[in-house]
Amino acid sequence: MSYRKGRAIIFSSPPSVRDSAAVAGKKEGEGPLGAEFDAVSEDPHFGKDTWEKAESEMQSRAAELALGKAGLSMAEVDLLLAGDLLNQCIASGYAARGRGVPFVGLYGACSTFAQALGLAALFTDSGAAENALAVASSHFCSAERQYRLPLEYGGQRPPTAQWTATAAGAALVGREGGPPYIRAALFGAVQDLGINDQNNMGAAMAPAAADTFSRFLQDTGAAPADFDAIVTGDLGLVGSRLFLELLKKDGLDPGARHTDCGLLLYDRERQQVEAGASGCGCSAGVASAHFLPMMRRGEGPKELLLIATGALMSPLSLQQGETIPAVAHLVWLSCSRRQ
Amino acid sequence: MSYRKGRAIIFSSPPSVRDSAAVAGKKEGEGPLGAEFDAVSEDPHFGKDTWEKAESEMQSRAAELALGKAGLSMAEVDLLLAGDLLNQCIASGYAARGRGVPFVGLYGACSTFAQALGLAALFTDSGAAENALAVASSHFCSAERQYRLPLEYGGQRPPTAQWTATAAGAALVGREGGPPYIRAALFGAVQDLGINDQNNMGAAMAPAAADTFSRFLQDTGAAPADFDAIVTGDLGLVGSRLFLELLKKDGLDPGARHTDCGLLLYDRERQQVEAGASGCGCSAGVASAHFLPMMRRGEGPKELLLIATGALMSPLSLQQGETIPAVAHLVWLSCSRRQ
Repeated sequence: MSYRKGRAIIFSSPPSVRDSAAVAGKKEGEGPLGAEFDAVSEDPHFGKDTWEKAESEMQSRAAELALGKAGLSMAEVDLLLAGDLLNQCIASGYAARGRGVPFVGLYGACSTFAQALGLAALFTDSGAAENALAVASSHFCSAERQYRLPLEYGGQRPPTAQWTATAAGAALVGREGGPPYIRAALFGAVQDLGINDQNNMGAAMAPAAADTFSRFLQDTGAAPADFDAIVTGDLGLVGSRLFLELLKKDGLDPGARHTDCGLLLYDRERQQVEAGASGCGCSAGVASAHFLPMMRRGEGPKELLLIATGALMSPLSLQQGETIPAVAHLVWLSCSRRQ
Repeated sequence: MSYRKGRAIIFSSPPSVRDSAAVAGKKEGEGPLGAEFDAVSEDPHFGKDTWEKAESEMQSRAAELALGKAGLSMAEVDLLLAGDLLNQCIASGYAARGRGVPFVGLYGACSTFAQALGLAALFTDSGAAENALAVASSHFCSAERQYRLPLEYGGQRPPTAQWTATAAGAALVGREGGPPYIRAALFGAVQDLGINDQNNMGAAMAPAAADTFSRFLQDTGAAPADFDAIVTGDLGLVGSRLFLELLKKDGLDPGARHTDCGLLLYDRERQQVEAGASGCGCSAGVASAHFLPMMRRGEGPKELLLIATGALMSPLSLQQGETIPAVAHLVWLSCSRRQ
């Protein structure tokens, strides 16, 4: 059973994120979080013959690793919630094939992991599932050629550009289990402040993150100081600055509590990723490899808001003169189950 | 609160499909269900300058018409669940922009409407939403050029091909309201029997429909005779035959109870649509214009299973030699709320 405070969904028996796993590419393995990934593939093809199959394989590996940690087989999972950036979400669809598990396909662009976690919590808290697996992925090579330019072209990247993460994260959410727990979720509304530069996704997504965060505080009566960490998905450097500016207008200042998965994944100076990381795999990978295990071990933040953002345009919609709509989904992760 | 019987999710207080509306194109308006649509646009562009914007506009109109019938404004809706076939689901993303309503983007290809209805029922039954709007759309012109060939090419269509419906359906699901009620849902597993012909989607999707239907009967202990209507999404002529053949192997015979939205939308002989209709808008439009209103009026079926099917490939995955995975999601619609 869950109940609402405004648009926030409060879970009566906060479900557990029982276990999580993340798989990443070589570049991500060389970044500051490299040692925390469950697996790093030196082979960007993950043993497959196309980038899209590689991404699907990476997603499957993350799912299997998460299940393995929890001692479950795929057949014991009640529900698989997954999404990615590829046209028709093929990384997820093919990864789910033949698994024999109910599949709910999502499209939330880079917000997918938080969307999947929120839905998984709803399924488990309501009794519709004993456990549910939330998965999201992105691959630099499959995303770049789909959204921007063929890799071989070697196009220059402006300083506002973000680097699509090659990573997949998977989290097993269950009715039973230890911390962290999902105490609440808020699914965001679609915002569009008129950005049309596909090399400046952070700016396009920041208003959605600010809107979701402000609304959550307003609906629940919470203050930024009630949380140890306020973690946005993949705003990067430009989007993070804009997020904080927008909050300031609402009289909110998360201060040092705010961090962004897009700023944690790479060493921006050393790894030449311009404004930081992006992609479904960014927040999925950073949460699954870094924050969720840290909270499980009782280290680091006790109360964490994950606010993953997604840009909902397509290359075609931009060619047709549209601006970039964005959405941000929030989940409240807590080391405590009390209400 | 909901509970599980196997993989079927049973809703303790079955949510109401309070109202629904469907908008269609000219060809659909000339079909057997033409008079039942809430609006038929003679203009395939729906007043917009691209096919994609036309689809988004059509989806918005369906949503607004459904809300208008229920006397609600968009601001009073707790949740919008929507999806479509376009890359990055832009018809839905842009239709949701600026609405100020929490948005859950879905990718289930042509199964999207049943997926959205099942999730809307979970949100409302669990208390996470008072009401939720489930929406799906497809447009012949935006789909054909994305999936197959430019319209101007005038490619020949084999007899197994299906005609992507230009239609959008929207249903408002609420905790309170009259019949029909959503008594149960089952989210399907991804099946792939090795079909790789994108002009034979019915055959690719039939195994998923048969699997979901069989599993639902097995999990709930129901028999085909417990339902007045067993309605598949868009299997068309070829897929429907295969669906019935596959069920026969399981000892199941829905007989005349089975019908398919893809066979209802057009007059196949007169309208030259080969094996029938397909697209997210097919089951969304036929359910929203035909079955849901009929059940609301107390006419027609009292117990109906909607089993919408989706093919999860992309043009790229087929070019890369992949076969077509498919999924089928089921909702049980009933004129009675009793358990």
